[in-house]
Amino acid sequence: MRILLQFPEGLKQKALEHAKSLESEGNEVFISSSPTYGACDLALDEARSIGADKLVHFGHAEFNKVDFNVEYVEYQADAPLSLLEGSLAHLKGFKVIGLVTTIQHVHQLDGIRSFYERNGKSVVIGKPYGFAKKPGQILGCDVGSAATIDRKVEAHVYFGGGIFHPLGALLATTKPFLAIEPFANKVEFIDALRGTYLKRSRGKVLASLGARSFGIIVSTKNGQHNMDLALLLKRRL
Amino acid sequence: MRILLQFPEGLKQKALEHAKSLESEGNEVFISSSPTYGACDLALDEARSIGADKLVHFGHAEFNKVDFNVEYVEYQADAPLSLLEGSLAHLKGFKVIGLVTTIQHVHQLDGIRSFYERNGKSVVIGKPYGFAKKPGQILGCDVGSAATIDRKVEAHVYFGGGIFHPLGALLATTKPFLAIEPFANKVEFIDALRGTYLKRSRGKVLASLGARSFGIIVSTKNGQHNMDLALLLKRRL
Repeated sequence: MRILLQFPEGLKQKALEHAKSLESEGNEVFISSSPTYGACDLALDEARSIGADKLVHFGHAEFNKVDFNVEYVEYQADAPLSLLEGSLAHLKGFKVIGLVTTIQHVHQLDGIRSFYERNGKSVVIGKPYGFAKKPGQILGCDVGSAATIDRKVEAHVYFGGGIFHPLGALLATTKPFLAIEPFANKVEFIDALRGTYLKRSRGKVLASLGARSFGIIVSTKNGQHNMDLALLLKRRL
Repeated sequence: MRILLQFPEGLKQKALEHAKSLESEGNEVFISSSPTYGACDLALDEARSIGADKLVHFGHAEFNKVDFNVEYVEYQADAPLSLLEGSLAHLKGFKVIGLVTTIQHVHQLDGIRSFYERNGKSVVIGKPYGFAKKPGQILGCDVGSAATIDRKVEAHVYFGGGIFHPLGALLATTKPFLAIEPFANKVEFIDALRGTYLKRSRGKVLASLGARSFGIIVSTKNGQHNMDLALLLKRRL
């Protein structure tokens, strides 16, 4: 079988190992060198171009059905929980907290919930809204796990790497928002970013008021391709 | 008809103009925002992804047949010929010169040839070897117009922009090589680059001698996709 392997940047160092293992089973293995930023960003064109029988996509959960043989291999990272202790000082004033994370750490949610419950918190974990698959999981395009519990909690806690995921959840909520980044060894409230990003976004809208032409960008990433919406926007402009 | 327009970076500023004209004829027009680096680099995946009936590719001549409705629109740029006069001093010692250029200036070759002939030179214009279409034309992957006349001339003259095209021709020839860049207002012998690039290339080969793994890169650009060669290399490694 001819197989194309696709990895997010952070997992590419594991590519050769996986390739060797699949080759030893008699497959012909290729590794995609392009970056990928999510399950919506499958290397389908590359897979078709090399005549692959299957695309194995690492690091993200299945997102939407596509017209190709895709196997998703989720990646679980066991992040150290040592920052939780220190986060209690930040959360002192809050009794009911919401908890969100990315797919890599969803398997750690139970442990994190127990920790906070042992320390007197009431923990709420929301359901994903559209594309995410698991309770407490957020995606760039699905922050429902945070948004749907906003009224029920006094503060939100994000556990995981980077600002991309919590930022979406932050903008979709109104309560204090604590980000715990286990690999960057950082615990901080990121509420101030709400104002920054809203201002920036409004600034862009204002700046566009004098524009004489507008462009509508249509992504060709399989999970971001929305031609109907693009054509609707064009008619409305 | 749904049409995707594709432009090299330098021609993108003309995109809206072409789009409007085609729209006024009742077409639905999209503009590719990706860069393209030659006729071998067609936005076929994008065209298929948006369900286009046709891809109009500007700035390059037809290269190889593809399984899609592609219209090539060549782009002719009238570069100023004012540098020719000054180039005569550089070419003083050479009676027979070869002349090469890119597709944008091929239509200017006759004028350039006449200029040199009026000034006592004998001008040789070679045939393209593989992918280029016109006498005197060079491509990144076809410098035959220069290589095939190397024995007949005392010096080569490249007329056009950038170093990418003449570099290939330079490495495939042995005679003095004058580059006339009309837009950068530069006339210079680039012979010294021969040694630089050969050394760099040999250095890379030397550096690889201790490598434990080798990667074979398979391009998915339509005109650079050579799976058979990649598989052959893999077996030989």
